[in-house]
Amino acid sequence: MSTETVHSWAAVDLRAPITPEGRTMVGLLTGFDSRIRDEAGGNDRAGTFPVETFEGFAKTGLMGATVPKELGGLGVGKMYDVAVGLVALAEADASTALALHVQLSRGLTLTYEWRHGPAHVRELAERLLRSMATGEAAVCGGLKDAPGAVTELTPDGSGGWLLSGRKTLVSMAPIATHFFVHALKRAEEGPGTLAVPVVHRDTPGLTVLDNWDGLGMRASGTLDIVFDRCPVPATDILDRGEVGARRDAVLAGQTVSSITMLGIYAGAAQAARDIAVGICARRSSGVPAAARTLIAETDARLYALRTAAGAALLNADALSDDLTGDLDERGRRMMTPFQYAKMTVNELSMRVVNDCLTMVGGLSYSGDHPLARLYRDVRAGSFMQPYSYVDGVDYLSGQALDLDQDNDYMSVRALRSQAPS
Amino acid sequence: MSTETVHSWAAVDLRAPITPEGRTMVGLLTGFDSRIRDEAGGNDRAGTFPVETFEGFAKTGLMGATVPKELGGLGVGKMYDVAVGLVALAEADASTALALHVQLSRGLTLTYEWRHGPAHVRELAERLLRSMATGEAAVCGGLKDAPGAVTELTPDGSGGWLLSGRKTLVSMAPIATHFFVHALKRAEEGPGTLAVPVVHRDTPGLTVLDNWDGLGMRASGTLDIVFDRCPVPATDILDRGEVGARRDAVLAGQTVSSITMLGIYAGAAQAARDIAVGICARRSSGVPAAARTLIAETDARLYALRTAAGAALLNADALSDDLTGDLDERGRRMMTPFQYAKMTVNELSMRVVNDCLTMVGGLSYSGDHPLARLYRDVRAGSFMQPYSYVDGVDYLSGQALDLDQDNDYMSVRALRSQAPS
Amino acid sequence: MSTETVHSWAAVDLRAPITPEGRTMVGLLTGFDSRIRDEAGGNDRAGTFPVETFEGFAKTGLMGATVPKELGGLGVGKMYDVAVGLVALAEADASTALALHVQLSRGLTLTYEWRHGPAHVRELAERLLRSMATGEAAVCGGLKDAPGAVTELTPDGSGGWLLSGRKTLVSMAPIATHFFVHALKRAEEGPGTLAVPVVHRDTPGLTVLDNWDGLGMRASGTLDIVFDRCPVPATDILDRGEVGARRDAVLAGQTVSSITMLGIYAGAAQAARDIAVGICARRSSGVPAAARTLIAETDARLYALRTAAGAALLNADALSDDLTGDLDERGRRMMTPFQYAKMTVNELSMRVVNDCLTMVGGLSYSGDHPLARLYRDVRAGSFMQPYSYVDGVDYLSGQALDLDQDNDYMSVRALRSQAPS
Amino acid sequence: MSTETVHSWAAVDLRAPITPEGRTMVGLLTGFDSRIRDEAGGNDRAGTFPVETFEGFAKTGLMGATVPKELGGLGVGKMYDVAVGLVALAEADASTALALHVQLSRGLTLTYEWRHGPAHVRELAERLLRSMATGEAAVCGGLKDAPGAVTELTPDGSGGWLLSGRKTLVSMAPIATHFFVHALKRAEEGPGTLAVPVVHRDTPGLTVLDNWDGLGMRASGTLDIVFDRCPVPATDILDRGEVGARRDAVLAGQTVSSITMLGIYAGAAQAARDIAVGICARRSSGVPAAARTLIAETDARLYALRTAAGAALLNADALSDDLTGDLDERGRRMMTPFQYAKMTVNELSMRVVNDCLTMVGGLSYSGDHPLARLYRDVRAGSFMQPYSYVDGVDYLSGQALDLDQDNDYMSVRALRSQAPS
Repeated sequence: MSTETVHSWAAVDLRAPITPEGRTMVGLLTGFDSRIRDEAGGNDRAGTFPVETFEGFAKTGLMGATVPKELGGLGVGKMYDVAVGLVALAEADASTALALHVQLSRGLTLTYEWRHGPAHVRELAERLLRSMATGEAAVCGGLKDAPGAVTELTPDGSGGWLLSGRKTLVSMAPIATHFFVHALKRAEEGPGTLAVPVVHRDTPGLTVLDNWDGLGMRASGTLDIVFDRCPVPATDILDRGEVGARRDAVLAGQTVSSITMLGIYAGAAQAARDIAVGICARRSSGVPAAARTLIAETDARLYALRTAAGAALLNADALSDDLTGDLDERGRRMMTPFQYAKMTVNELSMRVVNDCLTMVGGLSYSGDHPLARLYRDVRAGSFMQPYSYVDGVDYLSGQALDLDQDNDYMSVRALRSQAPS
Repeated sequence: MSTETVHSWAAVDLRAPITPEGRTMVGLLTGFDSRIRDEAGGNDRAGTFPVETFEGFAKTGLMGATVPKELGGLGVGKMYDVAVGLVALAEADASTALALHVQLSRGLTLTYEWRHGPAHVRELAERLLRSMATGEAAVCGGLKDAPGAVTELTPDGSGGWLLSGRKTLVSMAPIATHFFVHALKRAEEGPGTLAVPVVHRDTPGLTVLDNWDGLGMRASGTLDIVFDRCPVPATDILDRGEVGARRDAVLAGQTVSSITMLGIYAGAAQAARDIAVGICARRSSGVPAAARTLIAETDARLYALRTAAGAALLNADALSDDLTGDLDERGRRMMTPFQYAKMTVNELSMRVVNDCLTMVGGLSYSGDHPLARLYRDVRAGSFMQPYSYVDGVDYLSGQALDLDQDNDYMSVRALRSQAPS
Repeated sequence: MSTETVHSWAAVDLRAPITPEGRTMVGLLTGFDSRIRDEAGGNDRAGTFPVETFEGFAKTGLMGATVPKELGGLGVGKMYDVAVGLVALAEADASTALALHVQLSRGLTLTYEWRHGPAHVRELAERLLRSMATGEAAVCGGLKDAPGAVTELTPDGSGGWLLSGRKTLVSMAPIATHFFVHALKRAEEGPGTLAVPVVHRDTPGLTVLDNWDGLGMRASGTLDIVFDRCPVPATDILDRGEVGARRDAVLAGQTVSSITMLGIYAGAAQAARDIAVGICARRSSGVPAAARTLIAETDARLYALRTAAGAALLNADALSDDLTGDLDERGRRMMTPFQYAKMTVNELSMRVVNDCLTMVGGLSYSGDHPLARLYRDVRAGSFMQPYSYVDGVDYLSGQALDLDQDNDYMSVRALRSQAPS
Repeated sequence: MSTETVHSWAAVDLRAPITPEGRTMVGLLTGFDSRIRDEAGGNDRAGTFPVETFEGFAKTGLMGATVPKELGGLGVGKMYDVAVGLVALAEADASTALALHVQLSRGLTLTYEWRHGPAHVRELAERLLRSMATGEAAVCGGLKDAPGAVTELTPDGSGGWLLSGRKTLVSMAPIATHFFVHALKRAEEGPGTLAVPVVHRDTPGLTVLDNWDGLGMRASGTLDIVFDRCPVPATDILDRGEVGARRDAVLAGQTVSSITMLGIYAGAAQAARDIAVGICARRSSGVPAAARTLIAETDARLYALRTAAGAALLNADALSDDLTGDLDERGRRMMTPFQYAKMTVNELSMRVVNDCLTMVGGLSYSGDHPLARLYRDVRAGSFMQPYSYVDGVDYLSGQALDLDQDNDYMSVRALRSQAPS
């Protein structure tokens, strides 16, 4: 076993990439570190998306970091490495990491479509991936319907489709060129079909609202998108199966889309820890008993959250390319450790940041203190799907008890939106 | 035992006042409830102090709620009742409760000075109390030196004193008419003396900065005050003894000054709970397992924090008027249960609010959602002296182990400010 | 307000009785303290019930502590005072406290029956109470059916009844003279009726098994009782209404029966704390940071659990004698704070004891160390009905959400025992 | 990267060995599984060491599992794999795993001595390792002095040494053939030297007491050993350096000696979880809300503790064979993640087992229920050195704050034993 590999063996705690491509990506990200740190406070207060930073990302190829090399990208293929990059980025600014996550995870899922999808999807994926690699395309998802809205596709009468509805919580939207919009095709009978039209920002009827005002993650450009009979050709629509089909195979793609986000909250917690320990270490009055206890517990918790995340990422990477077995089983085997890790990361990252404020004291309660920002940013974790804490309890206990239930949160939401309220 | 008293017996959980005067005060506060709720969100976002609300308080006599009746006040004398009022107020807006707390606790400590202080202090106290009762005087404290500053009194050469320095985190400052400024009189030898000059806002050299920008409690008007050789007559100075004297008797006054604040965090937690349970109850999709668990634990925690606070308040009330025994012992017997309750209230109120966001989901992550405000407001609790969490661990473990240590945080701070950094 | 009453006001933390009768009882219990402490370890290891201690209790009148004075008892009528006594007793030995609790709470509920029950029950209650006061009668409950058993009453054909079945977890059984056995009268139709036959130990067909071997509470004499067609006259049966009737009025009696047990776990936690702090204080190597932190948090948690329990007890006492309003509402108003306090006491007492072992270190891991006994004893709390933790979550969340559900755990159990498994 | 290696990449959660030798060992252990499970309850109650099981281990070569193949052993060289084996064993019986851990970790450290030690130690190590491989030698450590004792080496006047003192908490002692006894060589001046004489059980003056009576781990044969002027030749003594030398290099060996124990607590927690989930799944009355929540959190915590342990083990394995850099730095880099993981494993394993009792209910409170045994067994974790929780807080906070302190707990203990009490 080479020294290289020996080092990699130990690399479970998200401290270093495990592939050369990952190292290239992290190296490029490092170049932006001081700029992002400098702007983080101001962008947070004003709720401003760091457009110039993302222009820089585009120029250096970072917007195509997860695009295969043969399509012009950096070729980062391991979710573990993407998460390592997001840790580093989130240590500087969690909002920026959240926005870049959108693009990087899209690169991963599009690469899968490009390799394994049906012909028209492969073609669409290749086009988008090449464009992401050059920095031209910034591709957002649109998953959650705005309150009261049901985003739907209806036939335009000539073989194409019209998209109407409203999506909320679309991160990186200020610079988006395309949107993957999760929509419902209603059927004559039955609960309908889930589909994902890919819509260009310039499509008639599409409006990007400038309405983000979050408790935290304020520089992530997390906006609402309104669709008013936007035309979409049939070739730009990905099929996601029938509502209520209970195909756990979809859990694989949902894992790939979201699991690298664990790095964001690990990075936010690490940033808080470094600030707090630094302040404690510099105090001339010594380190009180409670602070020593909190420091030790904080470092233990950081290790636990990093290693739980790292292990779940390595597991997802190992299963990701293996399509030989039962795909439903594969979906659950990717999702379940992700959810173990997510529950751990969400709980412990909030705990770590909160304890860091306690160590530092009233100083950290100022609106422009980095710990105050992290206290707000880190709270986002438990709301992210799949799954929020509440839904995660249902999923994980259902797995443990072998309950028959619908694990596809997009399907559950679609069914719920059709229920009489 | 009359029915009245029987009911009072059970009144440990801060749900109802235990004296007629307390009921009057709470009744008056109720009249402002809808106004305060309506304005809370806007004031929070803008960081605006609710001046008109406090004008209303002044007109109804609430600014003199804790002034004895014989001096024109409402005569609320029980800390328990003040806390009950602050619970109700904080359910509407925690910032407003924090600001009014300044005035109400000042009424309590001034009443003590009026009854038990030396002659010149009795006179000063009476003057201020009468003025608080009419709504003319709004009296702030200035406890914490701004970073790097040491607020000091120096002789003016003709029997009076000059005050210079800078205080931070002075709540209710926008409408303050007077400031109780904790200052150091340096001695030729030894660590000096703690003194509290009472300074009118119009005193030459006094500047109220408009610099509050907290993570939360943003409408509490918590400002910095700068003193530049402000003249103070000797009769307007309260003596607080030598630095490092280790007189635990001072813990009594510090308890009275701060213990009613427990009501603020109880109220904030209750407000979050009511919002979250209301939303869960209205959801047509049923209440998931995790939400039921969180609701039950939340209600248990609310009860625990309310009763710990209530018991500590009743204890402080019982000991407050009894000056017959060892005053150091009395100080510790008031402070220790207060600190037990404070540690409990701080921890559980944060936990409750955090869990309420979890129950409600992403909806609560919007910057203008009441739960997002409460998440920021409630975090203030653990920073409040006496004692912050870290200092509270030192105090309480010192009590349990019978360690010889300085429990007067004002003295500890004064010593620390004189240490070589 | 007299000094006496002022002191009582502050008495929420279970440190002192609030009535003269309570003080008498606690004084008598104190006389047994050293004997109980001396025997606690040995009885625990051997699983021996302290028969001689209970003979001593009988001689001093403690077995009739909660019997009204007019019937020869000590006349302790406040649950709060009973709990104070159990705290003191559990500090010496939790098992002994658990066993005496059976007798003391029976005194309270029988007194209620004697005052408010139907004629034949009043007569039965008086007879038993007088006998408890003299120390002759020791009266156990039999609530939980042994696994697989259903304890039932069937007509004997001549107006009387026959009791068959098996009860488990009957504490104080070694010295019991009577058993209150919760049984089912099956009906031709419907789910049947709950009834409580009172059975003398010498009744033909009754066998007291000697089968207790608990993880903890090993000296509490918690045995199984087998009933094989035991004859019971109709006058010795208390009616508890139809299964599934959903009458929350029964929650009042269930509260009185169980709420004083909170004192047992408060006492166990206090004992652990005193041992651990004593050991830490004597160590010449100083008190490490983690131990100081744990000591402070332990004392805060002890206060929280004591005051939550104290407040719930005062609430139950206040409502107990008031039969003027809606009895269902009264039941819920007694049970709900009890459950808040129970969840708090159970969680925090386990936490406190566990942390005390951590402070003391490996020394406490010896099978005969008092902390090892407390670690096992304190674990019993969360299993006690009403309600276990799991059932308590259902009850409390149901209350918060205003759900229509059966809150009578005896009824729920009866229904469950009739369900096809 | 081969499929094999890909699978290994994901193997961070202690579910499968990462080397063929590890797989062989786990396979052999599996053969004992049902026997160990059958005997676990009885051995626990009686405090009996499973001598026949260890005879079986010896026959199959398991007592030499970590002995290099060239010396006749199974050649398991990865701590990760040893921990995987201990997980499996502890799922059947934690006591048995604790005892076998003694032998397996001794094989690892002796292999290191055999490869890197001075000549006389290499010779001693080879002799012992060959004997462990055949199943003849069972080698215990003796680390902790019995209360009041100081175990010391004094010259015998003719070049040899005499060992006197008493060690406590020596696991696997009933079948031990040799003891590695941590002893003090007092110097004329200075605090003396730490040394480890290797003593055969038949040495004159050595007595194995039969005094184990733990709260848990009752079948682990954890006894006291008394040494009364036992003769030890100089060649059988390993040097451990001066007391107070502050050489962090020793942390490497201490890590190897103890880190695989993490598997024991992971296995105990897993066993509790499987019992509890199995019972919940079989209940016909459905799974209540609180149980679903606890199940999900339990599985997430199990994953977190397994992956934290797994990552720390992989890190230790990676650094173990690398002696090229700064050995003090290597010691810290092995110990620090071990301590992160230990704090996590100890806390979460106790939490998991405790919650499993809560899920199952009163049924689990019986003295002979497997969950009752696990509740007692799992408590041992936080007492194990290095470090107990309290000492671990000092170590980890010292590392974070870069404090200059003695991290060698054997040295700290030796100094403490010499301090005036």
